[in-house]
Order: sequence, then C-alpha cells, then structure tokens
Amino acid sequence: MSTVDKQLDEITSTITDELPNDISVSDVTYEGPELVIYTRDPKKFARNGDLIRTLAGKLRKRITVRPEPDALTPPESARETVRSVIPDDADVSNVDFHEDTGEVVIEAAKPGMVIGRHGSTLREITQEVGWTPEVVRTPPIESSTVSNVRNFLKQEREERRDILERVGRQIHREEMSDGEWVRITTLGCCREVGRASFILSTPETRILIDCGDKPGSDDAPYLQVPEANPLNSIDAVVLTHAHLDHSALIPLLFKYGYDGPIYTTEPTRDLMGLLQLDYLDVAAKEGRSPPYDSAMVREAVKHTIPIEYGDVTDIAPDVKLTMHNAGHILGSAVSHFHIGEGHYNVAFSGDIHYDDTRLFNGAVNDFPRVETLVMESTYGGRNDYKTDQADSEERLVEIINETADRGGKVLVPSFAVGRSQEIMLVLEEAMRNGKIPEMPVHLDGMIWEATAIHSTYPEYLRDDLRDRIFHDDENPFLAPQFNHIDEGEDEREEVAAGDPAIILSTSGMVTGGPIMSWLEHLGADPDSTMTFVGYQAQGTLGRRIQNGWDEIPMNGGRGRSGTLNLELEVETVDGFSGHADRQGLENFVKTMNPRPEKVLCVHGDEQSVQDFSSALYHNYNMRTFAPKNLETFRFK
Amino acid sequence: MSTVDKQLDEITSTITDELPNDISVSDVTYEGPELVIYTRDPKKFARNGDLIRTLAGKLRKRITVRPEPDALTPPESARETVRSVIPDDADVSNVDFHEDTGEVVIEAAKPGMVIGRHGSTLREITQEVGWTPEVVRTPPIESSTVSNVRNFLKQEREERRDILERVGRQIHREEMSDGEWVRITTLGCCREVGRASFILSTPETRILIDCGDKPGSDDAPYLQVPEANPLNSIDAVVLTHAHLDHSALIPLLFKYGYDGPIYTTEPTRDLMGLLQLDYLDVAAKEGRSPPYDSAMVREAVKHTIPIEYGDVTDIAPDVKLTMHNAGHILGSAVSHFHIGEGHYNVAFSGDIHYDDTRLFNGAVNDFPRVETLVMESTYGGRNDYKTDQADSEERLVEIINETADRGGKVLVPSFAVGRSQEIMLVLEEAMRNGKIPEMPVHLDGMIWEATAIHSTYPEYLRDDLRDRIFHDDENPFLAPQFNHIDEGEDEREEVAAGDPAIILSTSGMVTGGPIMSWLEHLGADPDSTMTFVGYQAQGTLGRRIQNGWDEIPMNGGRGRSGTLNLELEVETVDGFSGHADRQGLENFVKTMNPRPEKVLCVHGDEQSVQDFSSALYHNYNMRTFAPKNLETFRFK
Repeated sequence: MSTVDKQLDEITSTITDELPNDISVSDVTYEGPELVIYTRDPKKFARNGDLIRTLAGKLRKRITVRPEPDALTPPESARETVRSVIPDDADVSNVDFHEDTGEVVIEAAKPGMVIGRHGSTLREITQEVGWTPEVVRTPPIESSTVSNVRNFLKQEREERRDILERVGRQIHREEMSDGEWVRITTLGCCREVGRASFILSTPETRILIDCGDKPGSDDAPYLQVPEANPLNSIDAVVLTHAHLDHSALIPLLFKYGYDGPIYTTEPTRDLMGLLQLDYLDVAAKEGRSPPYDSAMVREAVKHTIPIEYGDVTDIAPDVKLTMHNAGHILGSAVSHFHIGEGHYNVAFSGDIHYDDTRLFNGAVNDFPRVETLVMESTYGGRNDYKTDQADSEERLVEIINETADRGGKVLVPSFAVGRSQEIMLVLEEAMRNGKIPEMPVHLDGMIWEATAIHSTYPEYLRDDLRDRIFHDDENPFLAPQFNHIDEGEDEREEVAAGDPAIILSTSGMVTGGPIMSWLEHLGADPDSTMTFVGYQAQGTLGRRIQNGWDEIPMNGGRGRSGTLNLELEVETVDGFSGHADRQGLENFVKTMNPRPEKVLCVHGDEQSVQDFSSALYHNYNMRTFAPKNLETFRFK
Repeated sequence: MSTVDKQLDEITSTITDELPNDISVSDVTYEGPELVIYTRDPKKFARNGDLIRTLAGKLRKRITVRPEPDALTPPESARETVRSVIPDDADVSNVDFHEDTGEVVIEAAKPGMVIGRHGSTLREITQEVGWTPEVVRTPPIESSTVSNVRNFLKQEREERRDILERVGRQIHREEMSDGEWVRITTLGCCREVGRASFILSTPETRILIDCGDKPGSDDAPYLQVPEANPLNSIDAVVLTHAHLDHSALIPLLFKYGYDGPIYTTEPTRDLMGLLQLDYLDVAAKEGRSPPYDSAMVREAVKHTIPIEYGDVTDIAPDVKLTMHNAGHILGSAVSHFHIGEGHYNVAFSGDIHYDDTRLFNGAVNDFPRVETLVMESTYGGRNDYKTDQADSEERLVEIINETADRGGKVLVPSFAVGRSQEIMLVLEEAMRNGKIPEMPVHLDGMIWEATAIHSTYPEYLRDDLRDRIFHDDENPFLAPQFNHIDEGEDEREEVAAGDPAIILSTSGMVTGGPIMSWLEHLGADPDSTMTFVGYQAQGTLGRRIQNGWDEIPMNGGRGRSGTLNLELEVETVDGFSGHADRQGLENFVKTMNPRPEKVLCVHGDEQSVQDFSSALYHNYNMRTFAPKNLETFRFK
C-alpha cells in the first residue's frame, strides 16, 4: 500500500469520526491540491453548513465534497429545481450537469446571486438536488477564447480528472528528503528582457517558473540544462502572467515529455491560450516553423490548475504557492513560494506595476515571510523614470483634439492585452467628460477578444472598475463608441475614408498584423497621426517610424510592394506602461513587508539590472545579485 | 557509418599517403586519447625514427603504433633478443609479452637505459622483434600497491582495451553543440574543507573534478544534483590528487552507473587505490558500513587513464586537459582545462604547495591561457601564516635531542602519504649531518607502503631528490635507520622497551590505527615525547591531546578498556604542511601567468575563503567569489 493510500486511509477515519453518523463517506481522494470527499448524503452535508470548513481546518487541506451518482436527482428534474432556486436577476444563461463529478455548472451574468449570502443559495441547490454547483460568469462580451477553453475542458473532463488525481497523489506523496537547501537556476531573462524562466528546486521538488520566448530573437530559455531535465522530473510549472515572453514555450514542455500541472490564475490560462495560438499564427504567416502545434496549447490548457489570488495551495510535499495581484496585466501574479515548514520563502515578482492603473490595483508586496525576492528590472536603469500617466493622458487628449480638428484619424499601434484596455478606459472617460469629441474608436486585431476576456474576469480588475462592471452595469468596455473591426479590409477602407476616428490596432510594435493595413490606408494622410503608446523594441518597424524613417518598404500581402512615403504625423506618448518605472520598482522593494534579505535582479538589460541591483544594495542594504543566465544560486 | 568511423577512414588515408609504400597499415583506431595504428611492418616503422612524430604533428593526435600479431617474433626467442639489446646496467627485473596489444612490458631498475638516447634502444627492440616496448620502473622498495595495480591491469587488459576503445570513440565524437557557455557547479568543499567535487560543463561535455569525503563527517558531495545526473552522462572524471577528501567517493560513481574514464597521474592512481582500500578497512573496523566495496575500487583503477605532467590530452571533443605539478603530495596536479578552440580556460588548483619542499617542486602556475581559477583556500585566513619549515626542522631536531637525552622515544603521529616522507627526509639529513644521534626510525601503519610508492615514481619528486634516486643510488628512503614495523604488537613492545628511537605512525590525527598501540605503550612514559607535525582537526583525539587532555578513555581492542593517564611530553611543530600558507596561496595567484580574470575561492572554512577572496579582490583587482556548495557559475 502506497504511503499516499495510507495517508488517505487515515484521513478517511478522521473524517468519519468527525461527521455525524447519518453522513456516509464512500471515498476520499486527491484531485490536484484538493481533497475530494465522496458521499451518498450530499444533501445532509449541505445542511450542516460548517462541516466542510471544520474538516478543512482540522485536516489543513482544501476540501471538495462530491455526491455519488446514485444520490443525485436526475438532471431533467434537477434543472427545473436549480432554475427555481436561483433568483431570476442572476440571469442564468446555462445549466450543465456533469455526471462524472456530480457537478452542475451554472453560468450566470451575476454569479453572486447564484452563490447567495455566504453561499446559502449554493447550499440550497445541493440540499434540493444533491449536485455540487459550480458557478461561472457569463462573459458580458462574448469571448471565443473563454468559451473555447470552457468547452474544451468540459469535453476533456475525464482525462482532466485523471490528471488531477495523478497530480494530487504527487503533491501529497511522502516527503523523502530533508529540506537542506533551496536553489534557483536562471534559464533566461538574466541581463536581458525576454525568455523568462527559472527553476526553483529543493531536494524533494523542482518547479519551473515561466517559460517565455525572446521577442525579436530565436533564443529560448536554456531548457536543456540538467537542472530542468528530464522535463518529467519537474513537479509543477507556475506561470506569472500570459505575456509571451513568459508563456510562449510552455506548450513545448508537453511536446518534450512534461505531463504535470501548470498553476496560474484563470484569466492567465485563457490569455495564455489566446496568445500562444496567435504566436503559432504569426510564425506560420512569417514562414517560420513554430516549435509546437496547437495540440500542445490544448495540452497546456488541459493541465492548468487555476488558483485564485491569496489562496495558499500545496503544489508539492514541501512547497506551498500563493499568487498575488501584480498589477501588470490581467491575471498577472507575484508568486510566493513557502518551502518546508517555515524553512524558506521566495517571491518571484514576475512583471509588476507598483502603482494603481485604470485597469488594475498596484502590485501586492505584503507577505507572511520572504527571504529572497526574484525581481523584474525592466525599467531599473538609473534614468528610467516615466512621465506621469495623468500627463500622458492629457497629451493623448491633445493629440486627438488636434488631429480631429484637422479632420484626420489617430492611429494607435497597441498591444492587444492590457495597453489597449487601459487606453480604452482613458478614451471612454475623456469622451464622457467632453474632453475629446465623441467619435468612433475602432478596435482591430485581437484587441476586441482581449477586452472580452478582461470583462469576463472583473474580480481581477481594479476595485472601482470591478464595481462598475459588477454593480452599476456601467461596463466601460461596452460603451457604444467602441467598434470591433470584424469585416476585414472593406471596413478598414471605409473607416479610413470617413470622418475623424481613433483606431487601436495590433501589432503594438508595427511588426505585422492589421496595423500594416492601417499604415497603407493612412500613411500618406498628413492630417492623421500615428501615436505610439508603448515601447518600440530595437529593430522593429515601430522603432524606425518613431525615429523618423518616412520611407517604409512594403512587401504587402496584397501585391502592393514598393515604398510607402509616410506623411502622417508621428507622436509618442510614453507614460503608459504595464511596468513599474525605476521609482515604482524601488518602491515595491522598499515598502515590501517583510524586507527581503536577498534580491536577484532579473528581466532587464545589462545596464538596468546592474543599476537597480547596485541601488538596492546601497540604499537599502540588501544583498543583491545581477545573475547571468545559466547560473544556480543556493539559499539556506 | 558513424562520424567517428568516417573520421578514422579519413585519418587512415592521410596515414597511408604519408607512409612509405612498404609500410602497411592494417587498422587505425582510438584507444582513450590516443590514436593507435596497427601495422604488419613494425620493424620498418621503427627504422623510420621520425615517422610517428611527423604523423602526430600532421594529425594533431597522440599516436601509438601496434604490430599485428603475425608480424611478431614469438615471445620465447623475442625475450632473449630483448635481454641482449638492453644494457645489463639497466637491471631488468621482468619482461612480459602481451599478445593482445603486441606490447612487451619491460620492468627495470633504470628505465632510462632501456629507453636509450632519444628512444634508440626502444626502437632497436621493435626493429629486432616487432613488439612495442613499454618500460616501467622496478620499484626500489617493493610496493604491494604498485605490483597489485600492475598485475590487476595486466589481468584485465582485454576489458581495459574495450574501455579505452569506447572512451576513444567518445572523445573523438563529432561535436554537436556550439561552445556558447562554460559552467562550474560546486558539489562540495565550498566554505568547508573536505568533500572536494566540481562539475565543469559545456553544452557538449560534463566533467567531474574530484569526489572526496569530508573527514569527521558523513557529508558526501552533492552528487544527487541534476548537474551530475545521470552519472553516465559524465564524460570524464579528473582527479587532482589521491587524498581521501578528493578521492574517497570515486568508486561510488561506478556503483551508481558511471562507466567512463578517470584521468589522473600514475602515482595518484596507485595512491588512490591504497587510500580507498584503507578507507574501506577503517570503516569496517569502526563498524560503519562503507558506501561501496573493494570491487568498486578495482573498477576505478581499471578505468584510470594515466597522464603525465605537461601532456595536453583530449578528453572530450571540446576539452583538453593538462596536469601540472601541484607540490602538495605525490602525483598531485593543478588541472588545466582548455575549452573549445581558445574558447575558455579554467584551472583547478586542487591542493597546492607553492614553495619547494624537500619532497616536491613548488606548484606550477604558468599556463598558455587561463580566465578562471578555482583556488584552494585551506590556509587563506588573514592570520594563516606558517612558521618557516627551516625553523620547524630545527625545533624538531631539538625535541629529538632532548628526548633522546632523557632516554625516551619520539612518537610522531603522521599521515602516511606525504608528511611521513617529508619528515623521513628531514631525519635522514639530520642524522647524516650529525645534528641528531643515529637511532632507528620506525615506520608503522601505511607509511612504509606509501614510501615505496614514492620511490617508484621519482619523476614526480623534487629535482634534486629525483636525481639522488636516479643517478647516485643515494635513495634516502633506503637509509638503514628506517625500519618497517611489520611484525605487529610484539615488535612494538620491543621498540617501546628499548633504546631511544623515533616512531612515525598513522593515523595522523590519532583517530585509530597503530598510533593507538604506541600511545598505550608510551603514554605513561614521561621521558618520551609525542610530537605533532600536522594539523589536528576539531573533535579528533589528536586535537584533544594537543589541547592538554591527559586522561584518555581507551576502549582498546585488546581488552584494555579504561583510562590512560598521559605522562609523556606533548609538543607541536607546526611548520610542516603539504599546503601553501596564506602567503603561498597569495603568491601562487599573484605570480600566476597569465593573471586569471576570476577566482573562485574554495576548500577552506567560511572565514578563510572570505578573507582570501576579499584579499585577492582588493590587492590584485580580480573578480573573486566565495561560492557556497550547490551553486552554478556561468562563464563566457
């Protein structure tokens, strides 16, 4: 009998002792980090509101109770009961019964009303029909990504359960090693931006944190180093956020034999899928052969175990993971690892924004303990101080007004995820307040879809924005001026020939995508303005235009090869960023509670990490490092 | 066809083109780092003295020519010819024919006379009989270790040839990776003394340098880290010297699946075998179960490819190893790795002695190139300055005279390898010069055997000592006052009851071995003196006695349990050391040619490595590190 089975036997006795005699326990098992209790008496379970909480406290586990199939009301009649129990205002869009797990998935516009006060409605549902309710939000804007992911997971539910059981047994295996050491190996993003990837290891466990690509380069993280091999010796992958420089190569892991869990937030899972598929798309369009295919993206999604901000989750016998809002993009997380019993604590910042933005609350930097911080340094250079966003917003308003006065259009190359939504919020407010004239805002490329995903997860947005979406039905993303360009070239031509308008389009660095069409349509129009609101990397067309190039070689897909003479105005408004600037980075570390003993400065070019590392050392007397790729640090 | 076979085909054509038409080539193959050419015309080959040198230069390989069996004079008649060609003064003690390789091993007291001027006698032998002569020295003192090793290797010659062929193909495989990086992982001996072990790796190759135990502790090197696994992915083991804190766990590698070569000097191979077997012995006596058995020691010996100081040896497609005298113990080597085509150079100091001692020339610190130095720091502390050996010798002479005047004996606990021979040289000279009275010097424990091994390899000793052994037949180790205690307890009792004498006995830290008997015999004799000439580690009985303990609990093997009241004098003479002191370490680095850019200070306690690292940084403006175990550094 394996030690996990022994452990489960003991847990079963404890549960049986704890439960009233009239509640049966038919099975106890692990699924991922959770302990699942099967019972023939789900209704009685639900009636004793505190039972699960008491058990969870006693066993120090996250607990899910599942009914055995024969204890369930048949779906046809259960559906009616469910509908009648839930208030109509909840606006239920779908009720779906999963016989294999005894779950009923209820999709509603207002999940809170399905849950009820302290879960009272959920308990009532179980008491009535036996099924375990799971509530998901009806996306206010239809997101094909979200519905594809949900449908896919439903379809793969059985395999997923196998995965979860396997992972659960892995997590709860008996710890074989003492906690003598903690190591971090740098596989990428050291003295460079891009290809974020780290291995966090103990004698017992190996965890891969992020696995991104490097924009403008073929360099992948050093996955071939022994610390990461064989890949199936890795216990868990943790993804801090969905940007490709952190997530692009995660599907590759499955191609090369990884078969374990990915821990991340739910929005990151969906955004990751979206961006990875786009990554394959772009590669195909550019005639490069991508390193994996879409089946591997599906594997990644299937292996994802979503966790919520603040939930302490066992991911290995000796490691607990807690993710906290990082303020950078939707679902982005500062990832905190608690190793052993108070043995050591490491936080990986991922990418952060320290101050609140319109979209997000600022990054969390408050932890029970933390000895070592692995800290992004994108804007860690001594002069990387950013214009205030308020000033930038004013400048953007000015540009829009000037351009509209000339009768031109404002063309904004913009990253689909994050930057576009931030600008949308600026524009929506400016129009509402009359600072700029009402005019259409056209959203091209993946921006609409990314916006749909944002509005599916309002819990992950800034407090007041979430409240607007939750309580007031004032979802700013649904403002009427926003138009999704979904009819292709004809629609673009029409917009280009029409009245003043604002166009947000991908790609953000003018390296491809619909922005190229917009450039053809508007490039020669001296009344229009191209406005950069994001960083333009060396070597991109965006950077060249920013630097004043006005003869753009076009090998356009539609046969219009040749040179395009740019005559539109070019402006840069540089106060928008998903990243903290030097001040924000310093504040994040300075106000961190508790103060870390050691800081590894990563994810910045050579000069930035050196500047930042030396500043932290001199100003705050911390032991700081500017690692190179392929180094291994040992802690404890 | 494998790339190695293709390569060999090309080499064969080149050789055929280069050779006169009347010399046939029947096969060309790799054995370890050497290229072996088989011919039916060994005599003609030998006649063209420069042929091999020309080929070696052209192919940039080390070349051995082997005759095909049918081209050889039968052993019976060949033996007579060999004996007649070699001058009688060579004093040949054995002639042994190996039909599988076509080699004739000639053991002689004066190998130089077997070789002849520029190898003329060897060539004459081949011309006469076809066999390839290999010359070994008849040990001037019979060493059972040396003869056991030689007999064992002879017996295992066929398997050994298989190993060498396999290793040869590995070394000469096509290089699959670019030389983008060089990494060093610390598996032990960082911020501590003991369990020396490192991994040097490139994208193509992994090399393990040393694999020792930690005296007074069960801590082994961190062999379980991924950088060292699986063990059979390691290309080569390099051993800097035979001391157990560098060599003890090498046999364990073979138990756990390593099956590759060990590169080291010939005396280190023999000493390693001796010390490892003793290690097993001691463990058994102390009731500990050793981690491997003697079969694994034999595996280690069988897999050893000896290399000579200064020989540049290919050990991987991208790594050349050169060993240089380290001055520390017999065969000890500073190991220099040349990686790629001038790509990067790393030197591992191993343990060194910078100044000349009586036994050895000082450590070599002159290299074609070296960017990174991994440097021992045993005596790197700010106050680790040593008494001059000359002063120490005088003090030892004084103690001996005083003790002899009282009619007592001088009992010297001493490490068998190195320290004992150094003291023997001091005593031999002092008696020869009349500074101390002629009296017997008894050698107990492994000292005699270790001395025999030293005198087998005079090439590895200090120039003038080697010359005395070579040319003048004045081998000081053969001086008549030296007596090997080989009749056990009776002989000890007799010595203890007799006239003034000097006794050198193991173990050096009074942790076991015959020194315990001597302590029983002489401990209560106030006329005798116990004289420490080596470092006494914390926790050893030697350290306690040094600190003044005079009631020694004895749980003697011969039933004499109880307490021994020490009444003999206790003296410490601390200027003898196989290690450079702080000044010597600094001089080694300071005068190193070229000056290394980076220095990793290892093999010293926490304070010593910190002191030394900071001194090198401040005084010589080098980038220095004081690594912890389990860290990985990346170079290039």
